Amino acid sequence: MSLPANPATPGRVIFIGAGPGSADLITLRGARALGQAQVVLFDALTDPSLRDFAPQALWLDVGKRGFTAATAQARINALLVQHAASGAVVARLKGGDPSIFGRLEEELQALAEAGIASEVIPGVTAALAAAAATQRPLTRRGQGRSLALSTAMTAELELRASQRADTEVFYMAGRQLADLSRRLQDAGWAGDTPVNVVSRAGWPDQLMSDHCVSTLPAACVMHAGRPAVVTVGVGAAPVCRLLAAPTATAVEGHPASAAFPP
Amino acid sequence: MSLPANPATPGRVIFIGAGPGSADLITLRGARALGQAQVVLFDALTDPSLRDFAPQALWLDVGKRGFTAATAQARINALLVQHAASGAVVARLKGGDPSIFGRLEEELQALAEAGIASEVIPGVTAALAAAAATQRPLTRRGQGRSLALSTAMTAELELRASQRADTEVFYMAGRQLADLSRRLQDAGWAGDTPVNVVSRAGWPDQLMSDHCVSTLPAACVMHAGRPAVVTVGVGAAPVCRLLAAPTATAVEGHPASAAFPP
Repeated sequence: MSLPANPATPGRVIFIGAGPGSADLITLRGARALGQAQVVLFDALTDPSLRDFAPQALWLDVGKRGFTAATAQARINALLVQHAASGAVVARLKGGDPSIFGRLEEELQALAEAGIASEVIPGVTAALAAAAATQRPLTRRGQGRSLALSTAMTAELELRASQRADTEVFYMAGRQLADLSRRLQDAGWAGDTPVNVVSRAGWPDQLMSDHCVSTLPAACVMHAGRPAVVTVGVGAAPVCRLLAAPTATAVEGHPASAAFPP
Repeated sequence: MSLPANPATPGRVIFIGAGPGSADLITLRGARALGQAQVVLFDALTDPSLRDFAPQALWLDVGKRGFTAATAQARINALLVQHAASGAVVARLKGGDPSIFGRLEEELQALAEAGIASEVIPGVTAALAAAAATQRPLTRRGQGRSLALSTAMTAELELRASQRADTEVFYMAGRQLADLSRRLQDAGWAGDTPVNVVSRAGWPDQLMSDHCVSTLPAACVMHAGRPAVVTVGVGAAPVCRLLAAPTATAVEGHPASAAFPP
């Protein structure tokens, strides 16, 4: 493969948080860094129109579809090292923020072992995009001062839920909404705790629905096959309803759905 | 005050996450929205060079210095309503992300009561900028799958600490590092748990230092008078050290400091 790189100068890798969804949720720093890249390794969940920021680069799809996770990660690590070692400026474009559920540590480790320099540019993570789209702040002064983020599925493909904080956001929960309802109740969440589900957060076709912990299984239909974040607790409740009736915690058992304009 | 707004058309408010620090950590969407604003209400912690995106607008400093928090918030709510009611497109520029520790709910509530439309554009929150700058992912596959964010100080100015997740990030902890060390141990964190402190995260003059829970008081000198985020647990450890010696949890008791280039 011939690359527009100079093997006489040292290559490097810039990890860039693409943000969650539409290309304009990337940071200015991230967009500018794309413009310097000779090679871009991108994930399945990044917006194709980000290519406009780096038309000069070789774009390589390293989305993990069709591989086992371990195979895919080893291949990504090898590609990063190979292209940077050839002298290229390599952009590693990750959906959301690289430091949250991005397996960044494995790629940093591979580069460190190969003696290749790296930089990380942060991005907007999906929980923040969901909160913005639904206008439901994840913290609420005096009522919700702690926030926990976790994956519903562990690395061993086991479903877990917890009650760590006033508001808890579960990533990658889309396929497990019915099970998640039960696990949340097992973890101590009251059945009438507000839950908000946003799928494709940050994209023009994002969808949201309101539930409570006990009625969460009803969300399966609307969000089927779409990456979703599930917010549970204080931060899931609408601001106005919460403030107008501070003792009411129940929200609609039937999903009140809305599609947001881009 | 004469505003370049048209009282015949309805005004609105766009909440914009400025990101943590340098202006280029704002999203493209946020920068474009600034360009549409006739009035900008900005916080003390936002980069003055963001003015370049909205030279046409009236810029109003609503940083809370010199007011009690309650007075300042009521004044901000009133200014938002007043300017939007006059027909202006108002940008409310908040440091970091509006949905995290931004008191967004109070401003949304004031606008809802006044019947004024609003939109929220997310931003990079300080914990993500600190993780990017130090190259310490907040989640680590198989070792750190949960992350909690909270303020060290409550609304009642009481210092609290907790052990909610594999990695815990405390915002607004800069003045309380010595007390925080004790509270973390009271909350169950082992004294040799890694702690990383980053002050002015996302700015060119950001500083970081490594500690463990028991030696955190030593961070006071370096970070005195600077807004700081404190990361505790798995996500505070350097990637290479952690992977090379997975049983070692102790990091340097003496701060290993570094200033990062912009």
